[in-house]
Amino acid sequence: MKIKIVLVFLLGAALCKAQNDQEAIKNFYDTALSDGMSYAWLDHLSNEIGGRLSGSENAQKAIEYTQSQLVDLGLDKVWLQPVMVPKWVRGEKESGYFKTKGEHHELNICALGGSVATPEEGIQGKVIEVKGIEELKALGEEKIKGNIIFYNRPMEQTLIHTFEAYGGCVDQRYSGALEAGKLGALGVIVRSMNLRLDDLPHTGAMTYGDLPEDQRIPSAAISTNDAEKLSRSLQTDASLELGFKQSCRQFEDVESYNVIGEITGTEFPNEIIIVGGHLDSWDLGDGSHDDGAGVVQSMEVMRLLKLKGQKTRRTIRVVLFMNEENGLRGGTKYAEVAKMKNEVHIVALESDSGGFTPRGFSFDCSDAEMEQVLGWAPLFKPYLIHYFEKGGSGADIGPLKTEGMVLAGLRPDSQRYFDHHHASNDTFDAVNKRELELGAATMTSLVYLYDTYGTKMPVTLPLKN
Amino acid sequence: MKIKIVLVFLLGAALCKAQNDQEAIKNFYDTALSDGMSYAWLDHLSNEIGGRLSGSENAQKAIEYTQSQLVDLGLDKVWLQPVMVPKWVRGEKESGYFKTKGEHHELNICALGGSVATPEEGIQGKVIEVKGIEELKALGEEKIKGNIIFYNRPMEQTLIHTFEAYGGCVDQRYSGALEAGKLGALGVIVRSMNLRLDDLPHTGAMTYGDLPEDQRIPSAAISTNDAEKLSRSLQTDASLELGFKQSCRQFEDVESYNVIGEITGTEFPNEIIIVGGHLDSWDLGDGSHDDGAGVVQSMEVMRLLKLKGQKTRRTIRVVLFMNEENGLRGGTKYAEVAKMKNEVHIVALESDSGGFTPRGFSFDCSDAEMEQVLGWAPLFKPYLIHYFEKGGSGADIGPLKTEGMVLAGLRPDSQRYFDHHHASNDTFDAVNKRELELGAATMTSLVYLYDTYGTKMPVTLPLKN
Repeated sequence: MKIKIVLVFLLGAALCKAQNDQEAIKNFYDTALSDGMSYAWLDHLSNEIGGRLSGSENAQKAIEYTQSQLVDLGLDKVWLQPVMVPKWVRGEKESGYFKTKGEHHELNICALGGSVATPEEGIQGKVIEVKGIEELKALGEEKIKGNIIFYNRPMEQTLIHTFEAYGGCVDQRYSGALEAGKLGALGVIVRSMNLRLDDLPHTGAMTYGDLPEDQRIPSAAISTNDAEKLSRSLQTDASLELGFKQSCRQFEDVESYNVIGEITGTEFPNEIIIVGGHLDSWDLGDGSHDDGAGVVQSMEVMRLLKLKGQKTRRTIRVVLFMNEENGLRGGTKYAEVAKMKNEVHIVALESDSGGFTPRGFSFDCSDAEMEQVLGWAPLFKPYLIHYFEKGGSGADIGPLKTEGMVLAGLRPDSQRYFDHHHASNDTFDAVNKRELELGAATMTSLVYLYDTYGTKMPVTLPLKN
Repeated sequence: MKIKIVLVFLLGAALCKAQNDQEAIKNFYDTALSDGMSYAWLDHLSNEIGGRLSGSENAQKAIEYTQSQLVDLGLDKVWLQPVMVPKWVRGEKESGYFKTKGEHHELNICALGGSVATPEEGIQGKVIEVKGIEELKALGEEKIKGNIIFYNRPMEQTLIHTFEAYGGCVDQRYSGALEAGKLGALGVIVRSMNLRLDDLPHTGAMTYGDLPEDQRIPSAAISTNDAEKLSRSLQTDASLELGFKQSCRQFEDVESYNVIGEITGTEFPNEIIIVGGHLDSWDLGDGSHDDGAGVVQSMEVMRLLKLKGQKTRRTIRVVLFMNEENGLRGGTKYAEVAKMKNEVHIVALESDSGGFTPRGFSFDCSDAEMEQVLGWAPLFKPYLIHYFEKGGSGADIGPLKTEGMVLAGLRPDSQRYFDHHHASNDTFDAVNKRELELGAATMTSLVYLYDTYGTKMPVTLPLKN
């Protein structure tokens, strides 16, 4: 009889818990959709401030704005974490062309982030088209030297997860100039990382590694339409002339900041859950999807948790990372400081895949953690959140990874993302208010569940200060 | 021993089938994404032809264009099915205003489809704001008579399925003038069916039922921003003056067509599976999402099935319905003719919810049919298709419903749909190529499975001619 009573009691308690979770989650979605702040915050970041390249005046404005908004939310602590960041400046608008059979074609072109400038008069040369770095190496120094290398391997259309298509191409952009520079090339142009055929060049980070300065060649992206046109023209005129001009410049590192806010946990203040996105963006658009969306969604998580009216059991931090795009200095610094302070992070969740309709999360975690997450999946079903898979999380939170910790990335619908990524059309009008808000509510729900139930990680530090 | 061999054989056959299905479906997705036709067809329908209101010259052009494209696909039969459709013409661009405290505010306004015109000089009057038809009726003739009724119940933001929010509001648009006319109102304006605050009026069908002509009052939609502004102004000036002017006109019915194409089944030609969308659209935009997308996706289903190179077991028909928007005459006619000919339709699938990323299907079917569908869900998982629920299908295929038949509707992501629905921004640029193509591949996969396995419906007619 006693056992029965205990069982009924336990069952009742479990049902009650489940119902509380359902209600809490419904409340997050209802509030985000009917009375959310994320869209208004994004409007300010995008339209009042604009593109926020590391080290720029706009990046500093974004730091000040988001800090003040977090203070207004009434979090327990808000602070800036100093971090030195690279400062690269695009300069004059780039120009480029190719000439074939007496015809002059203007190119839609932009410098890659971190590239050196061309001489003032630009560079001109013959074009060697390759499908990638392997083909470049196979051609060898003799064929490469003195020429402009045109990397033209397109993103794979048949991949459903467009980030996989990006991953399969981006080495051309990141390391293309490094490898071509070693072989004495004059310059590099790369087909934009874009699944769509259009006229917009897409910038992005590139590296020279430890190449000596005299081997560092200018590197730029051209639009997908131009890549197609150039490739066709090369088939009938292999010795056509191409030229481009850019005046970008790398300055000394400057001081910048991660913006951090915290709700201190009442029961387990030493178990830290962070939620974040990156505050910096490329300079061509206003960085609404990449990653203004992740920034304002992370702020909204804090607001929705505060609105709920109960203190959190664990410590919840929002971290708005600086310099994801061209250095990852903010993420690296945050992890360094956390390690130095012996802080225990149990979960880190990043939103850095655009402000589109959320589909779920990918998790970098153990099987036991994954099992816990899958147990929560039914709570998300009414909101059409169905994707809970192992996979990468986010660049900024990567350095924080320790044994047993859960890293998670919000996974929005990815079909449109690369239409806008790093291009001049990554702008506020390309973000749908409801889609953005649904992402914020989805993130809040996951953070709420981790706050309520913790992870499977054995926490070895004392749980109370 | 024999039993074991049979079991191994059956198991092997089942595995082989499953593998065939996986491969067939992968092939549909790969081809749609890398070598699809739907986007080029939509480009023509939207940009070369444009808005296709029933009875218009553009509707006729769309009939001829899609017919010729289906013929080019080499289907077994292509034909036009005559149907009489209403012809309503918008006339001059509408105008409207309200005046309060000496200020004149222009309204973004459009006539609802089927509305009568105002007198040439327009109508002017005081405004009674109501949240719906119930409130109108409660106010009664005394308060309504001679005034302009302003229906201002917004779509419910917290509903995840935006079509539910639409369903909860659209009675104001459809029956608002009918009910207000009975009470002697001068005219009706309706808040646009749009979840977003913007400046675009959204048209759509309305009815006068069998109201005598002298009680038929002009009915128009205003943008959501204007609805908010007007409502605020009414709070401080209840007797402000509002006026609007429209010159729309209903003509006699004209002959039009459903466009139909068929791949005749090799084994069960009398079991018919149809896939379709509607060819007509509203006139303000070019009808790219509503329902150009459904039209070209349905055509692409036929193309992908043909490309597969094997004949289908059952008869697959594409039906491009005429006049979904303001009469449903095409869907009604198709069902009439099917009944007259004693045709057995086992499945009808419609795409009429926009060309956004597909999430799955809703099904109007028996529990046994639903069980079969759920068994197929794992085949769709790699394509992030996760939504298989009972629910409505599509307006055009509704009249076809018979006992035992499966009606299905493609369910794309619905968050952006009502930003564009029936408004001037339902245009080609709002459709993403990959999202459209994913929808076509998803539909093809379902049709392929029904073709391969049939339904659970007992087919009573002879299966061969």
